Amino acid sequence: MNTQPRRICLVGVGLIAGSLGLALKRAGSVEMITGLGRDAGRLAQAQALGAIDHFTTDPGQALEGADLVVLGVPLGATAAVLRDLRPYLHDDLVMTDVGSAKRCVVDDTETVLGAAPPGFVPGHPIAGTEHSGVEAAFPSLFEGRRVILTPLASAHREAIAAVEWLWRQAGAEVTTMSVAHHDRMLAITSHLPHLLAFGLVDMLAREPDHEEILGYAAGGFRDFTRIASSDPVMWRDICLGNREAVLEALGRYRRDLEELAERVEAADGAGLEAVFSSAKQTRDAHKHGFER
Amino acid sequence: MNTQPRRICLVGVGLIAGSLGLALKRAGSVEMITGLGRDAGRLAQAQALGAIDHFTTDPGQALEGADLVVLGVPLGATAAVLRDLRPYLHDDLVMTDVGSAKRCVVDDTETVLGAAPPGFVPGHPIAGTEHSGVEAAFPSLFEGRRVILTPLASAHREAIAAVEWLWRQAGAEVTTMSVAHHDRMLAITSHLPHLLAFGLVDMLAREPDHEEILGYAAGGFRDFTRIASSDPVMWRDICLGNREAVLEALGRYRRDLEELAERVEAADGAGLEAVFSSAKQTRDAHKHGFER
Repeated sequence: MNTQPRRICLVGVGLIAGSLGLALKRAGSVEMITGLGRDAGRLAQAQALGAIDHFTTDPGQALEGADLVVLGVPLGATAAVLRDLRPYLHDDLVMTDVGSAKRCVVDDTETVLGAAPPGFVPGHPIAGTEHSGVEAAFPSLFEGRRVILTPLASAHREAIAAVEWLWRQAGAEVTTMSVAHHDRMLAITSHLPHLLAFGLVDMLAREPDHEEILGYAAGGFRDFTRIASSDPVMWRDICLGNREAVLEALGRYRRDLEELAERVEAADGAGLEAVFSSAKQTRDAHKHGFER
Repeated sequence: MNTQPRRICLVGVGLIAGSLGLALKRAGSVEMITGLGRDAGRLAQAQALGAIDHFTTDPGQALEGADLVVLGVPLGATAAVLRDLRPYLHDDLVMTDVGSAKRCVVDDTETVLGAAPPGFVPGHPIAGTEHSGVEAAFPSLFEGRRVILTPLASAHREAIAAVEWLWRQAGAEVTTMSVAHHDRMLAITSHLPHLLAFGLVDMLAREPDHEEILGYAAGGFRDFTRIASSDPVMWRDICLGNREAVLEALGRYRRDLEELAERVEAADGAGLEAVFSSAKQTRDAHKHGFER
């Protein structure tokens, strides 16, 4: 395995893989970036934007000579993509993905390939916007952002090194943790907030006068609901892919809301203030941590 | 009543009243702005920042010669402030407030003053930030933003005209609606989102490893929780002040979350995607409406 891979294959060139391609090209880190996908028109767009050097819709051709393959597809497409790639995978190939949940990717890998190959290192760049598609890609997306890798015990050390190297070329800080820890953390900081924002805007959408109501929504609402503009299919897959941790977080949150409702009902000002103060204190203490 | 008031009294000079003062001074709209409060140190700061011309802690002195008084205090302080002002109120005085809920302000007025005076025009500028205090005030806060007035049937036409004039001087667009309609709309677009954001960050704060978890929170979480940095006392008062509408909105939202949880549990991808798509469509359609 090549710990500084020269030939990269991006499978699915959307916001994340496209931005990685742009970053690697800008840094001059690799020799060749091949895009693989099903839609030649979108791949041609990725090539025109400079995210890939060339493209193909043929998996065998795409993996020919590749050192490292990045799965940049929605979680729900992982198994199908692995089935397409299976005949061309080999022990020297490093493979990673960018999925927002990791247990389901590992499960898909084990289901389709029998066992996770030693070259496979699951990954998740903590970066993105509410936009999607390669047209929203930009090369600095990962600068100063964190990428979490969740390698299994069976992973080859050189494969981990290669994936770490790749993300550092894109300007990211790489950390490693267990699949379960990743999935629990992200359920709270990302998956649950998306569910809540989608839910709130959907509730509003069902109000007959929602257009008037939105006309009186201020900056707080705009920021709170920004993530409700995210891709529905991608988030459907994430909620199902990380179902257990999402349900656990959502269950706890629903119990907390029940308690908040009781406090409002009982006009328990001190109780409400205690919750609000705890939240403000925690968020303010971390405020500058967000600005990286 | 003077439909173009010259002498303004701001009671409580925080973010909102302070920004109004700065805007009126910048526009050269009024002759004199007096600040009234209990804390001379903070009033001196407001004067130093140019939000008021002079200040006093004496209600009688503050209202002497004033055409229009703006209550800029948290909702929970409205009744106490009205009691302080009561001896000095007269039929020619226009009075408005900036509270985020309107029924409770009207109730306080009727309780303390017997009936809402004809010069009283409840108001709510749909503007603000997660910061508070006069040190966060800035003169363009209301530019292009909406101010909702909810005058009662008993309100004097000239009082409404004076308050409209005042906010237009600050660059705002003024609209008028009923107290109930205001309170229901704001419960959905502002009060409920604040409750949800406070609740989420409080839940996170109770995780033993919340500092590590926050380290992996990305821009989505940052924006979603920005409003959880808002003033706890102010939001306690708003939740209690608009209790009925907040409980109604929260109740509906909790039922929606129950349904979402059922869909995640049942791995109902189509059902989740339908909710997420409806939300995305509604928010995207309004996206440019936020940017004013």
